[in-house]
Amino acid sequence: MKKLVFGHQNPDTDSICSAMIVELGEKQKGIEIEAVALGGLNEETKYVLNYIGKKAPRIIQEVEKNQKVIMVDHNEFGQSVKNIEEAIIEEVYDHHRISNFQTKDQVLMNVQPLGCTATILYQKYSLEKVEITKDMAILIISAIVSDSLLFKSPTCTKLDEQVASELAKQFNIDIQEYGLEMLKAGTNLSSFSAEELLDVDTKEFQTKNGKYQIGQINTVDLNDIVSKENTNIINAIEKRITNNKLDLFMLVITDILNSNSIAYCIGENSKKVAKIFKQEIIDNKINLPGVVSRKKQIVPFL
Amino acid sequence: MKKLVFGHQNPDTDSICSAMIVELGEKQKGIEIEAVALGGLNEETKYVLNYIGKKAPRIIQEVEKNQKVIMVDHNEFGQSVKNIEEAIIEEVYDHHRISNFQTKDQVLMNVQPLGCTATILYQKYSLEKVEITKDMAILIISAIVSDSLLFKSPTCTKLDEQVASELAKQFNIDIQEYGLEMLKAGTNLSSFSAEELLDVDTKEFQTKNGKYQIGQINTVDLNDIVSKENTNIINAIEKRITNNKLDLFMLVITDILNSNSIAYCIGENSKKVAKIFKQEIIDNKINLPGVVSRKKQIVPFL
Repeated sequence: MKKLVFGHQNPDTDSICSAMIVELGEKQKGIEIEAVALGGLNEETKYVLNYIGKKAPRIIQEVEKNQKVIMVDHNEFGQSVKNIEEAIIEEVYDHHRISNFQTKDQVLMNVQPLGCTATILYQKYSLEKVEITKDMAILIISAIVSDSLLFKSPTCTKLDEQVASELAKQFNIDIQEYGLEMLKAGTNLSSFSAEELLDVDTKEFQTKNGKYQIGQINTVDLNDIVSKENTNIINAIEKRITNNKLDLFMLVITDILNSNSIAYCIGENSKKVAKIFKQEIIDNKINLPGVVSRKKQIVPFL
Repeated sequence: MKKLVFGHQNPDTDSICSAMIVELGEKQKGIEIEAVALGGLNEETKYVLNYIGKKAPRIIQEVEKNQKVIMVDHNEFGQSVKNIEEAIIEEVYDHHRISNFQTKDQVLMNVQPLGCTATILYQKYSLEKVEITKDMAILIISAIVSDSLLFKSPTCTKLDEQVASELAKQFNIDIQEYGLEMLKAGTNLSSFSAEELLDVDTKEFQTKNGKYQIGQINTVDLNDIVSKENTNIINAIEKRITNNKLDLFMLVITDILNSNSIAYCIGENSKKVAKIFKQEIIDNKINLPGVVSRKKQIVPFL
């Protein structure tokens, strides 16, 4: 059975790119492995794969018992593939907190408080003297630009910026130009229904205050999405809350040019959450000035 | 608040040595840190610290909220310090499976399927160009010899053996002679009561079949402990099972010279467990020929 490597559900650019980097790196070492995805690609990731002329990874729904897997960019079983608890988890490369995760046997875990999983993989393969090819470099650069919003997010570390900048220089890529084009491609949500907007990049969290889902959408114009879809989004979120027995759904819409967000904040716990951010809920939304990172600026406070 | 680094409860040589290696390594980088212990030292570890003329780490009972900690040689909260869930877990170096572990925020986890945590720390500090002093080298060698029973355990990898052998050569230590003396020192349990024997190196596991505690004792003569303490041990185990609501207690007594074990196997699930190892329970004990590793040869089958 070929080993599988994958990122989280509702895959973002770091999840897809990191899985593909591992496939390319491990294959150089003669290991039989396939990068797969736990969902379709977003517009931003499509831009990246189109740029390097690679096909999207095959989408899988579940894994078989004793399937050997490498997890990238996630560890929580709730964000992973169906049946993950029956798989043999051999390796984990991630930059998130650890939660709802366990293994049956010994495991290789390389988890670091960095801005991006791909930065960890760059380190790994550099140490292992695996060649960082141009395709690998573009996947690494894209993942870092995506997770750091071109180095603007507070999650971005010096190392993330340094790795992306050095690789860009080495392979003659204008990182500002490439990065902005890539991020803008990701904001093209014109074909999305309100329901689909909720799935662009939504993660579930089991907190001690209840079950939360938090989605994030990048845009170059905050009002664009809200003005077009306001009522539909509110209806879709309320449906989602009922169907998934959620105590809160937040849909964070982030202006990647000006580093601000507004967030739909709906559910049993919405008022408590608004209070945490010292904001008032107006028409089901709160302002989140200066907030661009779900991981650093939202999740820890819930 | 000074950072703390510690191994698991009922500390063995790898837990104590790894915590001390981290203290010595981090201090070279100017970090304020103290190695502490979650219990008193066993005879083997005392031999090591006596050899290098170092005092035993201070014993702590709990940690305060938001205490910054580094965990070595364990990750399961059930094996860790009281209040660990309130601490800020900054780093984890371990070689065990992951279970009952979580963090509130991002974390550095360097977990590898090796025979010993100290091998991971050797790698880490070599990469970071931290000087491996003679004291650090002896702590690393001792931890590897202890966890691998002088390279005889199936948990021992090529890398563990290579690291210990190279350091021994570099610092002019006869590893066979030193290692055997150290292991023999650990088998001196003459002053131990039956109750104390149960605490020499006992770990708790939450399995899907129930709550298990498995202790391990090294000896150079299998019959020595059993003949002297048989009835007392059985009574102590039965008391332990009642007080801790256990479904099984195993006390594995391992002959480090001939690589065999016998195990007291008592509790609700003892017959099931004996069947797994294809053994009959005679006088509350089963034979475990060729078994020396709790982690590789016992735990995965429960």
